[in-house]
Amino acid sequence: MSWPRFEPKNPAWRAAATSTFDLQPAMRTLGISIVRLEPGEVDLAMPYSQAFTQQHGFVHAGIITAGLDNACGIAAFTLMPADTGILTVEFKTNLLAPARGERFLFRARVLKPGRTLTVCEAQAFAAQTEAESLVATMTGTLMALPLRHPPGAADVPAAAAR
Amino acid sequence: MSWPRFEPKNPAWRAAATSTFDLQPAMRTLGISIVRLEPGEVDLAMPYSQAFTQQHGFVHAGIITAGLDNACGIAAFTLMPADTGILTVEFKTNLLAPARGERFLFRARVLKPGRTLTVCEAQAFAAQTEAESLVATMTGTLMALPLRHPPGAADVPAAAAR
Amino acid sequence: MSWPRFEPKNPAWRAAATSTFDLQPAMRTLGISIVRLEPGEVDLAMPYSQAFTQQHGFVHAGIITAGLDNACGIAAFTLMPADTGILTVEFKTNLLAPARGERFLFRARVLKPGRTLTVCEAQAFAAQTEAESLVATMTGTLMALPLRHPPGAADVPAAAAR
Amino acid sequence: MSWPRFEPKNPAWRAAATSTFDLQPAMRTLGISIVRLEPGEVDLAMPYSQAFTQQHGFVHAGIITAGLDNACGIAAFTLMPADTGILTVEFKTNLLAPARGERFLFRARVLKPGRTLTVCEAQAFAAQTEAESLVATMTGTLMALPLRHPPGAADVPAAAAR
Repeated sequence: MSWPRFEPKNPAWRAAATSTFDLQPAMRTLGISIVRLEPGEVDLAMPYSQAFTQQHGFVHAGIITAGLDNACGIAAFTLMPADTGILTVEFKTNLLAPARGERFLFRARVLKPGRTLTVCEAQAFAAQTEAESLVATMTGTLMALPLRHPPGAADVPAAAAR
Repeated sequence: MSWPRFEPKNPAWRAAATSTFDLQPAMRTLGISIVRLEPGEVDLAMPYSQAFTQQHGFVHAGIITAGLDNACGIAAFTLMPADTGILTVEFKTNLLAPARGERFLFRARVLKPGRTLTVCEAQAFAAQTEAESLVATMTGTLMALPLRHPPGAADVPAAAAR
Repeated sequence: MSWPRFEPKNPAWRAAATSTFDLQPAMRTLGISIVRLEPGEVDLAMPYSQAFTQQHGFVHAGIITAGLDNACGIAAFTLMPADTGILTVEFKTNLLAPARGERFLFRARVLKPGRTLTVCEAQAFAAQTEAESLVATMTGTLMALPLRHPPGAADVPAAAAR
Repeated sequence: MSWPRFEPKNPAWRAAATSTFDLQPAMRTLGISIVRLEPGEVDLAMPYSQAFTQQHGFVHAGIITAGLDNACGIAAFTLMPADTGILTVEFKTNLLAPARGERFLFRARVLKPGRTLTVCEAQAFAAQTEAESLVATMTGTLMALPLRHPPGAADVPAAAAR
């Protein structure tokens, strides 16, 4: 299947997505950064950190999932209108190989954008000096929530709004 | 449905599960600890930490997933034979409410133990001073891997063994 | 966790749920019927039929999934307001044992109702003369869609409305 | 990511996969047939049938799932050794659009083959006279089970073997 091109609804999609990403302390703590950003697509990168490993020295599946989930969220957010909040409804992760590497890439793209729900796919790769290998996949559902107030601290989407 | 009682195959199940848990740097980094451990069941606890939040100050879905996944893994591991490694095959998380609270609980139990695959269910709760509320659920599949060597650094289950 | 009691918003919830169920030719073809219906909970039953088996004579996983999905949908629908359509957003099924039996039960309950999204859990049991055994589980997300027209043929929720 | 080519382990992979497919009464009942078969890849087709629709006249999500699951199973089976049985461990389906069309295609490919577990991705398309549209996706995990007996009625993989 050839992949669709998406038209962003928010002219400031790049700034909006970057700013939402930057507002997440968890991304800073994990050292995750945006390395590519297009409408409906994002690549994130994360260095290996021993602090986030499991009993065999591989990166913990939950940390890999944090990267995949965030990639899905940012990819979905690039296609949402202005004045919209985003939350994750659900995701499913398959772990395909140990997350062993110097660096990890999380690549997400929108599969189906929608007024309320957006479905994304993402893949996690472990990168060594010369090669990349697929370590995990995600399918996730994200929800757009209209914000009723100007952006700021009161901006939290109500749980009841799901 | 009344819930089954499970008989551990490894007489040292408690020490084995605790030790596997303690070997995970990610659990220390996230401040997660075991608060209850029975054959096929585990409760983990995690304090709120601003370092692992998303853009609205809630705990990041990936971090909640790390707790849920680990709870599933430990619950499954209590029923596995001695000299067995464990890895997560896949999991699915539904986020039901914002992960807002002073403390989080991750409760997992084995739904179906198997020689090779074990299926678990887990729930994440946000705890305030006087109440608990359900914030996420997981269904996960874990795999037992026979270890070919005495426990130690060379103990890593081969990716090919999946 | 004690299970919440749900208050239906539609006083005619029972008739609405039954009528939506009865409008599905697939349920008739598979011989599935409602055996219990409460707010947020439903049990469906299906007889064994050789026509829907796989290569070992067990009921096909997709057919078990059809029963589970429908149970989730009806359970969710009992809590939705009048003049609402429902569609399945996604589901996840774990197959725990071969679907071998004379009769199958699909039991669903609402885990989290919401204005737009409702999350349900369901279990499939194979029933022999004297016993029931768990064969599969589902977690599913259902979506309420306000209907813009009086019920009838024009009642189809637009795909774009997701 | 460029897609890997897989080498079948069973020289008779095509006959083995076709024969397993043909042994499933559910596939005949649903009118599903194999339209393309390569190592690690399969396309199945199914005509529209009113008997398998839901309340809006679209094909029921469970029936779409039956096609996706079978596509994953056959794709995985092409890469398994001779004298192996296969069972579905779990799958996750996202419904992206109403399953409205004259004909449906289920396209699966192996994402990660393994000695015990194989992970597949599949997509369901609704086909009208001139166009195809994506209606659902699946990620599924399949398990290879060594058969202890020559093929035949005694060939059923034991549930305990999971």
